[in-house]
Amino acid sequence: MNQIAQPLARYAAWRRAGDFVFLSGVIAVDPQAGKIVQGYKDIPTDAAVQIGQTGEFSTDYKEGPILAQSWYVLNSIKNTAESAGGQMTDVVKLVQYFRNLDHFPLYSRVRKQFFPGDPPVSTVVEVSAMLPSPDILIEVEATMWLPIL
Amino acid sequence: MNQIAQPLARYAAWRRAGDFVFLSGVIAVDPQAGKIVQGYKDIPTDAAVQIGQTGEFSTDYKEGPILAQSWYVLNSIKNTAESAGGQMTDVVKLVQYFRNLDHFPLYSRVRKQFFPGDPPVSTVVEVSAMLPSPDILIEVEATMWLPIL
Amino acid sequence: MNQIAQPLARYAAWRRAGDFVFLSGVIAVDPQAGKIVQGYKDIPTDAAVQIGQTGEFSTDYKEGPILAQSWYVLNSIKNTAESAGGQMTDVVKLVQYFRNLDHFPLYSRVRKQFFPGDPPVSTVVEVSAMLPSPDILIEVEATMWLPIL
Amino acid sequence: MNQIAQPLARYAAWRRAGDFVFLSGVIAVDPQAGKIVQGYKDIPTDAAVQIGQTGEFSTDYKEGPILAQSWYVLNSIKNTAESAGGQMTDVVKLVQYFRNLDHFPLYSRVRKQFFPGDPPVSTVVEVSAMLPSPDILIEVEATMWLPIL
Amino acid sequence: MNQIAQPLARYAAWRRAGDFVFLSGVIAVDPQAGKIVQGYKDIPTDAAVQIGQTGEFSTDYKEGPILAQSWYVLNSIKNTAESAGGQMTDVVKLVQYFRNLDHFPLYSRVRKQFFPGDPPVSTVVEVSAMLPSPDILIEVEATMWLPIL
Amino acid sequence: MNQIAQPLARYAAWRRAGDFVFLSGVIAVDPQAGKIVQGYKDIPTDAAVQIGQTGEFSTDYKEGPILAQSWYVLNSIKNTAESAGGQMTDVVKLVQYFRNLDHFPLYSRVRKQFFPGDPPVSTVVEVSAMLPSPDILIEVEATMWLPIL
Amino acid sequence: MNQIAQPLARYAAWRRAGDFVFLSGVIAVDPQAGKIVQGYKDIPTDAAVQIGQTGEFSTDYKEGPILAQSWYVLNSIKNTAESAGGQMTDVVKLVQYFRNLDHFPLYSRVRKQFFPGDPPVSTVVEVSAMLPSPDILIEVEATMWLPIL
Amino acid sequence: MNQIAQPLARYAAWRRAGDFVFLSGVIAVDPQAGKIVQGYKDIPTDAAVQIGQTGEFSTDYKEGPILAQSWYVLNSIKNTAESAGGQMTDVVKLVQYFRNLDHFPLYSRVRKQFFPGDPPVSTVVEVSAMLPSPDILIEVEATMWLPIL
Amino acid sequence: MNQIAQPLARYAAWRRAGDFVFLSGVIAVDPQAGKIVQGYKDIPTDAAVQIGQTGEFSTDYKEGPILAQSWYVLNSIKNTAESAGGQMTDVVKLVQYFRNLDHFPLYSRVRKQFFPGDPPVSTVVEVSAMLPSPDILIEVEATMWLPIL
Amino acid sequence: MNQIAQPLARYAAWRRAGDFVFLSGVIAVDPQAGKIVQGYKDIPTDAAVQIGQTGEFSTDYKEGPILAQSWYVLNSIKNTAESAGGQMTDVVKLVQYFRNLDHFPLYSRVRKQFFPGDPPVSTVVEVSAMLPSPDILIEVEATMWLPIL
Amino acid sequence: MNQIAQPLARYAAWRRAGDFVFLSGVIAVDPQAGKIVQGYKDIPTDAAVQIGQTGEFSTDYKEGPILAQSWYVLNSIKNTAESAGGQMTDVVKLVQYFRNLDHFPLYSRVRKQFFPGDPPVSTVVEVSAMLPSPDILIEVEATMWLPIL
Amino acid sequence: MNQIAQPLARYAAWRRAGDFVFLSGVIAVDPQAGKIVQGYKDIPTDAAVQIGQTGEFSTDYKEGPILAQSWYVLNSIKNTAESAGGQMTDVVKLVQYFRNLDHFPLYSRVRKQFFPGDPPVSTVVEVSAMLPSPDILIEVEATMWLPIL
Repeated sequence: MNQIAQPLARYAAWRRAGDFVFLSGVIAVDPQAGKIVQGYKDIPTDAAVQIGQTGEFSTDYKEGPILAQSWYVLNSIKNTAESAGGQMTDVVKLVQYFRNLDHFPLYSRVRKQFFPGDPPVSTVVEVSAMLPSPDILIEVEATMWLPIL
Repeated sequence: MNQIAQPLARYAAWRRAGDFVFLSGVIAVDPQAGKIVQGYKDIPTDAAVQIGQTGEFSTDYKEGPILAQSWYVLNSIKNTAESAGGQMTDVVKLVQYFRNLDHFPLYSRVRKQFFPGDPPVSTVVEVSAMLPSPDILIEVEATMWLPIL
Repeated sequence: MNQIAQPLARYAAWRRAGDFVFLSGVIAVDPQAGKIVQGYKDIPTDAAVQIGQTGEFSTDYKEGPILAQSWYVLNSIKNTAESAGGQMTDVVKLVQYFRNLDHFPLYSRVRKQFFPGDPPVSTVVEVSAMLPSPDILIEVEATMWLPIL
Repeated sequence: MNQIAQPLARYAAWRRAGDFVFLSGVIAVDPQAGKIVQGYKDIPTDAAVQIGQTGEFSTDYKEGPILAQSWYVLNSIKNTAESAGGQMTDVVKLVQYFRNLDHFPLYSRVRKQFFPGDPPVSTVVEVSAMLPSPDILIEVEATMWLPIL
Repeated sequence: MNQIAQPLARYAAWRRAGDFVFLSGVIAVDPQAGKIVQGYKDIPTDAAVQIGQTGEFSTDYKEGPILAQSWYVLNSIKNTAESAGGQMTDVVKLVQYFRNLDHFPLYSRVRKQFFPGDPPVSTVVEVSAMLPSPDILIEVEATMWLPIL
Repeated sequence: MNQIAQPLARYAAWRRAGDFVFLSGVIAVDPQAGKIVQGYKDIPTDAAVQIGQTGEFSTDYKEGPILAQSWYVLNSIKNTAESAGGQMTDVVKLVQYFRNLDHFPLYSRVRKQFFPGDPPVSTVVEVSAMLPSPDILIEVEATMWLPIL
Repeated sequence: MNQIAQPLARYAAWRRAGDFVFLSGVIAVDPQAGKIVQGYKDIPTDAAVQIGQTGEFSTDYKEGPILAQSWYVLNSIKNTAESAGGQMTDVVKLVQYFRNLDHFPLYSRVRKQFFPGDPPVSTVVEVSAMLPSPDILIEVEATMWLPIL
Repeated sequence: MNQIAQPLARYAAWRRAGDFVFLSGVIAVDPQAGKIVQGYKDIPTDAAVQIGQTGEFSTDYKEGPILAQSWYVLNSIKNTAESAGGQMTDVVKLVQYFRNLDHFPLYSRVRKQFFPGDPPVSTVVEVSAMLPSPDILIEVEATMWLPIL
Repeated sequence: MNQIAQPLARYAAWRRAGDFVFLSGVIAVDPQAGKIVQGYKDIPTDAAVQIGQTGEFSTDYKEGPILAQSWYVLNSIKNTAESAGGQMTDVVKLVQYFRNLDHFPLYSRVRKQFFPGDPPVSTVVEVSAMLPSPDILIEVEATMWLPIL
Repeated sequence: MNQIAQPLARYAAWRRAGDFVFLSGVIAVDPQAGKIVQGYKDIPTDAAVQIGQTGEFSTDYKEGPILAQSWYVLNSIKNTAESAGGQMTDVVKLVQYFRNLDHFPLYSRVRKQFFPGDPPVSTVVEVSAMLPSPDILIEVEATMWLPIL
Repeated sequence: MNQIAQPLARYAAWRRAGDFVFLSGVIAVDPQAGKIVQGYKDIPTDAAVQIGQTGEFSTDYKEGPILAQSWYVLNSIKNTAESAGGQMTDVVKLVQYFRNLDHFPLYSRVRKQFFPGDPPVSTVVEVSAMLPSPDILIEVEATMWLPIL
Repeated sequence: MNQIAQPLARYAAWRRAGDFVFLSGVIAVDPQAGKIVQGYKDIPTDAAVQIGQTGEFSTDYKEGPILAQSWYVLNSIKNTAESAGGQMTDVVKLVQYFRNLDHFPLYSRVRKQFFPGDPPVSTVVEVSAMLPSPDILIEVEATMWLPIL
């Protein structure tokens, strides 16, 4: 589960420009496996528990998809940040696209785990669709500030 | 009415990164009061008149919500810019999200009052929803360039 | 066909901020002519052939609008980049808004022709509308990194 | 541009009954030319400017259709009134049908230019369609009181 | 088939005011029989033939409802006009409400048979419903000018 | 509660033309207070009881809006008629627009209280919207015959 | 009109379990006649008058279906209660399903006639459909407490 | 396939209260396996044949989901009844919720196999959704009368 | 905040039948105040905190309505149970109607606080509407077993 | 019930071309009687029983329309085949249009009774409408091979 | 106007197979000109008059598109038939696809002009779309029997 | 992958009638495996590459289903043609049903690979559904002319 955010088409996962590192929009897809994250079963067990898996079928069935995708996306950003030589605290800005903004409280709960300290600036909107399919519930675009020492 | 743009959740209103200052997306909500701007009555009287209040019930009922939200959002950005040590002319880029692009001409009229001189670059799209409710008609994300002297 | 991306309202086509050049969101409209690109007939003939015009009426009728708009938008970005003293390889980030993400494979085919080398980072979402009308199928916002030597 | 309101089918444009002159519902169509008014380009230039043409593509694209139709319809009523021996001040009653009542503020702005003095009584409703097509945004039925001296 | 237009609720079928006779809006319902006109079978045979019954099942099934209702409504207005001491040529104004304006050409064909000479002024709009049910396809409100000698 | 029907925009509440007095379409809005009638609480208590308030929450919640608006509109017409020197019996014609014709039986019950004697002629249609908002359930346009003695 | 509630498929109309008698959900259908109650004409004349038939076509057309079905359903429950050796006062609980909760006030008016004394407990919800067709507007499930002496 | 109806959340599968045994609403889900019954493949082969599997792909594809869920749900109720010390003949009442009442004839066919003798009382309605997902086509709530000897 | 569940129309809040106590369906409405519970502000502060109020505007705006209604409804049932001489542990069965089953996990969290021990049997469905308005998100019908000693 | 498939408009019921006999698309309409088959009551009793009439109201109400139309259409084809000198075994090809493909299993059951031996080739699609009305659920076009001896 | 039916993609306009000539589905498009027939203006004047052009704007606007396309399609089939050495009387079968079956009576009127004698067999269905765009209202597939002498 | 087109229900895959061979409509389903072709993974690898698999996740996810189904259907027709003793060049006519005509250009690209020489005549329409499920994107009905030597 150390994957970095992989591009879904022919574009870069991240790119440095001066002191900034721009990341492509990240979704909960493993392009190598051709697999979209659908729920708790597609992320590590301890992560599922940490973000709120209850063990009750109906509750997990309803909340699992957005919680698991939120974790997967933010974890990918974390891995990408590290592969670029930085860390989550270097992320200064997030643009977050949802398919359904009723999911925001659940995503927000996961985000706090990834940004326990000073949070980045944030924009949140609901869009009508994301690549590659309606199963995608969230896409996050991150910008890092990582001055070259 | 000197509020700066306040975050609606746990994230920063603005954050400096080198010579840039990034602002979170701003909507017409006063989170302290738990109140969404609905029309002319929620902004200062002189601002309402300045952006086009007519005093005719039907016209103001139709145009008031988007005009008042446009003013509130841009005024918040102005206050935020000033609290970061800059001003509106330092804003170099705007991304503007609408719930209904038929509102654009009215927003555009207000924006000219806030940017009488050289305008920033601009992106405009219509999205299906914004936080926290369908009453939100517009969200604006601003980027400032404010070199450290 | 050397037009740079022209603003549709009162805002800048591009603006430099330090080593960065920000472009306004670009759509396939010629504001001087008051004309929206509708298909192959609105772009140069050789460009139409290059991006896939087949000469079969039904196929071209279906694929022409998005292919022609994709070419027009990316070509405008290219012209704008050049007018700012750069080129396509200086574009480090693209945010791409679609009206229908089923158009992505066709757009992607055109993009590869404009970015034969290292691609920029990329975010892709589907929005419910763009300015000025439903005929607009795609809007692209580009960011260049063009250090001042 | 001195056309009087022309019937779109086999009925009278206006008819006197005692001291009253009744007008058929007027829409922004030139039946001789078989042409529906779509925007500023279909009305005289000075009229377009007078009712609010801005020269900005997106704004004019959004507001042009209803503003131009409003002008065309009220101007036709004015011409019809004159051809019946009266003038706008003789119009005592208007019934106004809209396809979208969000257009009302724009129509209202134009109406004030045609009725600078005492206004007629007025009824306003939104209907689902008008003849001959969805491009028709407004239909106005006028009644004049023009006593025979 | 000499019925005059009967009210469906507690209001007058017609009423004189000075030289004018106002009629209530007429629909194709026989309130005594509690029956809505549905097609050719609900009007006299010769009237059906005269307005275009073809004898082909599918064509008559499609066109019968609006043609029969158009005849019934205009015939009721004619009977009402006569009961008020006038005739069709005294009708100076019609407001015609449709459930579907694609029915206009068929109605128009019938109207010409009732107004072979000088036609009245006319307003035509499509509304979302009429009393008492969706089976009602058209309602016509007539105004007569019948000076008291 | 002696308000006459007030215009919502720049037009006359009523206007005399010879022996006729035309009223603008009336809706249940108090433009001075900027308030739309929403239910029994917005009309006088005795009127609410008279038109059918039951004291049961669910029933009053469902029926209150249309009953209160019906009373308010007809009461405004009555006041307007009186301010023009006439009374309800001088009203010869009503055109009634509904947002939902299922409301007709409730409106009809109220109308009988205002027209206990000879009723006016009447046209009833359902339209898709009225000014200024979807809360408006009914609009009534009245014509009076009030000969000058 | 002494029918008890008849099952529409292979199940019991009622069944005793200890001191309780459970009734199947009742709808306004006469399965022997294969007929769904559509309005006043399908119930006894005196019942129609008692529940509110007005004799005005449009009002009865709108209100008749739900009022007649309400009467039919509650009357069937009454007959069933009696056939089981009890009466309406023995009914302790009702679950009421509507196709459109705007019908509740009319149903409630009829229910009071069947339960003039102490009312049963009650649950009311709107469902998307009932057997056998969309013409069914209400279904009521009753529970009686009828202790064996 | 001897599973009893298992709760999907934190509630009891059944509970005795005096001589009655109440069951929670049962759906075709195996919460242990986290699996929703989708068709014949998810139930025992002999059961599939017994309820009507035809072996023709299109027919089984259309009818399989509701038939298999009907069997699964009723079989679970049977197992639950037995685990509570009773049997199907002790079930006195069923409330059956469908997502699409066109499924009723197929469910009814299966129910007859589980209740060959005296049937319970029955209520049937269509609801807009059930837990945990749109794949659930039917939910059945059963009440048993199982006197303590 | 010690209100028991009050009927919204003319029916009983609860009724004893032998050893059972049946409750009417409960919704989050205070019929005396004519007020529907809309969010945290309509319930006691400590209850709001206990069920999950976060203090973040967007999250509370999204989750507040269903959490507050869930608390209000279950608290009303608790009060009703106590007024009938019992307590929550005597509730043996719940039927829960939702307007949107995505609310289930939030309701479920609140329910656990009211039923920390042995839970009742439970049925959960989503219906299209409840009385008196779309603001009602949940209705709960409870059955108690409270043997007479 | 020996009718052959009758045309609904001016076209041939069948026509021979060499060794082939082409039939027009057949629907369940008796054009002479102007009647559309709606259910079991419109076909012979023994046919209804043979294709699955159960005698239970709800089941027959749901399944009757498509089963009766399927029988009527295939029986018409059989009669037409015989009037052309052939029989069902000479039918080599069927194109079957449905309004709702969920009806396929029921149609398929009837078709097997008409083609007990070698079946024809078959195409099945769902279309949005057929002549003359939405009551038509199925249309079948048959081709026979009937070599001239 | 002697064009034969031209393919819109890479397929044959017609092809002989033994004594039969099969035609591709024909729509009202001139692929060389890249033009779809929209109304009377796109067909010869005398043809327009012959099929029913009235000269009244609204009527012709409504009926023109389907009448003109019907003529164009049948005329193309006639030209194709002749280019294959046959004529309209050799057409033995037509399959006719409509976008809106309310157009059938108008098409039927035109078809009679092309088939004054013995008509072919005919199948008529409404489909959701045809190539290349929603402007296409009708597509006709013809089969000829043209024995080789 | 040498499967011939297998019937999904009880009908023939193909049938000879004189010199003609008729095929049943073919869809991308393997009825033995009970599996619908969903994308590239369900067809042979070399076929996927040949029809345009790109290896980019999003593009293949969007284009894969229709391209793979197109290949599967045409390959099945080819196998069927061969099993009947012919080949693709003997196919004289195709009727092609789509669920979404925007898929046509992709299907057309595949069809050219199967018909490199003289193409058959062709009819293309979009229908609302095909058997057995919405996953089916295309159905093709082929007619061969295969004279018996």
